[in-house]
Amino acid sequence: MSVIDTLIGRLPTGRVITDPDVLDSYARDRTFLEPGKPLGAVLATSREDVVTTLKWATENRVPVVPRGGGTGLAGAATAMDGSIVLSLAKMTAIRELSPADEIAVVEPGVITADLDKAAREHGLMYAPDPSSYEISTIGGNLATNAGGLRCVKYGVTRDSALGLEVVLADGRVLNTGRRTMKGVTGYDLTGLFVGSEGTLGVITAATVRLRQAPKAPPATFAAEFGSLRDAGAAVSAIMAAGCQPSLMELLDRATLQAIDAMRNIGLEDATMAMLIGQSDASDSAAVVARMQELCEEHGASFVAVSSSPAETEELIGVRRMAYQAKERLGACLVEDVCVPRSLLPDMIEAIERAAAKHGVKICTVAHAGDGNLHPVFVFDHGVPEPPPEIWAAADEVFTQALALGGTLTGEHGVGLLKKRWLGLETGELGTEIHHGIKAVFDPLGILNPGKAI
Amino acid sequence: MSVIDTLIGRLPTGRVITDPDVLDSYARDRTFLEPGKPLGAVLATSREDVVTTLKWATENRVPVVPRGGGTGLAGAATAMDGSIVLSLAKMTAIRELSPADEIAVVEPGVITADLDKAAREHGLMYAPDPSSYEISTIGGNLATNAGGLRCVKYGVTRDSALGLEVVLADGRVLNTGRRTMKGVTGYDLTGLFVGSEGTLGVITAATVRLRQAPKAPPATFAAEFGSLRDAGAAVSAIMAAGCQPSLMELLDRATLQAIDAMRNIGLEDATMAMLIGQSDASDSAAVVARMQELCEEHGASFVAVSSSPAETEELIGVRRMAYQAKERLGACLVEDVCVPRSLLPDMIEAIERAAAKHGVKICTVAHAGDGNLHPVFVFDHGVPEPPPEIWAAADEVFTQALALGGTLTGEHGVGLLKKRWLGLETGELGTEIHHGIKAVFDPLGILNPGKAI
Repeated sequence: MSVIDTLIGRLPTGRVITDPDVLDSYARDRTFLEPGKPLGAVLATSREDVVTTLKWATENRVPVVPRGGGTGLAGAATAMDGSIVLSLAKMTAIRELSPADEIAVVEPGVITADLDKAAREHGLMYAPDPSSYEISTIGGNLATNAGGLRCVKYGVTRDSALGLEVVLADGRVLNTGRRTMKGVTGYDLTGLFVGSEGTLGVITAATVRLRQAPKAPPATFAAEFGSLRDAGAAVSAIMAAGCQPSLMELLDRATLQAIDAMRNIGLEDATMAMLIGQSDASDSAAVVARMQELCEEHGASFVAVSSSPAETEELIGVRRMAYQAKERLGACLVEDVCVPRSLLPDMIEAIERAAAKHGVKICTVAHAGDGNLHPVFVFDHGVPEPPPEIWAAADEVFTQALALGGTLTGEHGVGLLKKRWLGLETGELGTEIHHGIKAVFDPLGILNPGKAI
Repeated sequence: MSVIDTLIGRLPTGRVITDPDVLDSYARDRTFLEPGKPLGAVLATSREDVVTTLKWATENRVPVVPRGGGTGLAGAATAMDGSIVLSLAKMTAIRELSPADEIAVVEPGVITADLDKAAREHGLMYAPDPSSYEISTIGGNLATNAGGLRCVKYGVTRDSALGLEVVLADGRVLNTGRRTMKGVTGYDLTGLFVGSEGTLGVITAATVRLRQAPKAPPATFAAEFGSLRDAGAAVSAIMAAGCQPSLMELLDRATLQAIDAMRNIGLEDATMAMLIGQSDASDSAAVVARMQELCEEHGASFVAVSSSPAETEELIGVRRMAYQAKERLGACLVEDVCVPRSLLPDMIEAIERAAAKHGVKICTVAHAGDGNLHPVFVFDHGVPEPPPEIWAAADEVFTQALALGGTLTGEHGVGLLKKRWLGLETGELGTEIHHGIKAVFDPLGILNPGKAI
């Protein structure tokens, strides 16, 4: 009897996939990274399945790679040879949704947009909205501390996580946090698990904070600029004016060209950047009018303002097309640096310098209100991994982000993809501390080894 | 040469206090707890002083009790026999304040209100405002993850902490977090240190988030209710209406009586509760008018609305008098339970039941928008610590808070005061994990032993 058969024997029928062809799709995320060959994939439907799997894994010293929707962009869910993939995607219950307390208790496989939709029925919303939120799961969002478009106003996933039910590597169940808005009993274990990429434990339920949904439809603008510096200055002015945008996205010319090539958006030769902003305040039209003024004062050549939900959809649609448009150009290495907001134009210029120097194509979209940039390095579909000049350019981008007081990753995570730069940001002592914490939760190193830290 | 003399020899002249009379005031916080006799108190003026002290403490196995302003309400800074008190109160530099990036880098001894004031000069604010914020320090606020009145809208101290410089028990310096609004590189060590009550390391600098200060003066209301349930229902209605109050405080009749006895506020016989709320939105007058309506719909007998900053000060002044008014009644054991917001009236009733059953005086103030209650147990000034009936009533309050899905402490911390109940909330596995984490940072148990966990 092989080791995987002993696991199959312990779990209810049908929980374990071993067919290599099916297995392969459970072994990879959305990066180009080639996974190893896992022993199998467990499709857990309950906490008990998770407990059984982890106890077995600990007994047999088999590494476990937890996964949600598989939409990660950092290789945090890339499986290695001889591992067990543990999918939480089938744990989809919204166990509780309390409008009075503005909280929900959800299982990790709930699709993020589904939770938001359930909350909207009560006039509430689940605020964190990674671009993938229609296909990614709460569990994956928690594991990576996902950001999103709205987080410029409402914060990232960690800001909505109140408490967790977590299965540790040895199968013991730990409850962290609380159902209350505030609480300071003990260390912040909830915050520690959020963003730990499945290296400390497997989340089987989360108590999350909901918020009042805006009462009126949002208002939106899109502004064209002849220079990135002008667009950056407009962002700073908008934030400083206290406009509190609920979305503030910057697209560079390379991105706009890619979108224009896919669907004609009438891109002018002189347009170097586009800023798309939104307000969901009760007086959103007035706020957007003020944001329009500030764009014009800072050199915008043209500002379109939505006067209906359909027009809002159209303006936001340009942003939504960005990734798809880039994928038409080639394979994509998506990066995720974040810098202090005022240095956004410096970072974009550094990216452009790196692109020119190494002769590579980089298209950049930024959550500009947060200083979070996604430079997408485009390379040939035909090659198995990015060629050396792409890595050289990426190296320069990371180094520059750190030099500007920034970080390697604003919202996607470290996974496997950023491991080679991690030490530059974390430092020797920080690395030692991280591994010490890891050993408290997972002394045998069963959980997602080689990722995140 | 005694052990303390070796420390005095290593530090610049004048850094160490050993005079027993002066020392005593450095050994206690604002609780009634009697401290032990520390060897001395270091008044650090630089990171180097902290490093020197901790290296010495590690070499000599001397416990270290870090402290800020000494305004804590949980005994987290209560010194024990043979320890060294490490005061950070003289590290008061605001090293940097960047309006463009909306961040400040501050030393731990900065008085919280002073940082807020410095930020206001640039149209910004430092949001967290514990009631003690004119005398407490940023370092102490970080160590306890302090809340405050504004946190119903702007979050607690942890929500404003972006990065920390921390000296570990062995004197090594760890930098955590970042200068950026978002970032997911590594585990959330910043969040872990915040609220850890000096048990994991000594914070010597913090990068904190500032926010745009409201442009217009706030508007305020105070509403009187004939029942606590009605007041609680009004709070729920106000939150559900999306009013986003910047302050939402509830005072029970016992508290109002104490205030009325100190300064006549014309308390009516039928008034069982008062709700004080504020909006700092751009349309604050309209929002407060809406809140007034909702109070009236939920049975308020009288609602006063401010029409000027002076009147706002007067209404808020009633809330500010609460603690002082109670101290006139006797010695105070201040508690800090937090429950899901909809259960606020249940919790208040449980407190009233406990008071009646044990024949003790309890006055309650609540940060009602957060479900965070401060039942203040009043006892004779003459006795050294609360008599048994106070502890029995407190025990019942804690047990009930946990039964309602709440927590022992919303914002004050565990310190020494709540240690006896801690296990009820943290559980056996949680306790094991906490001690495991503690050992990663402080394997010899030098830092504030016996507190927090």
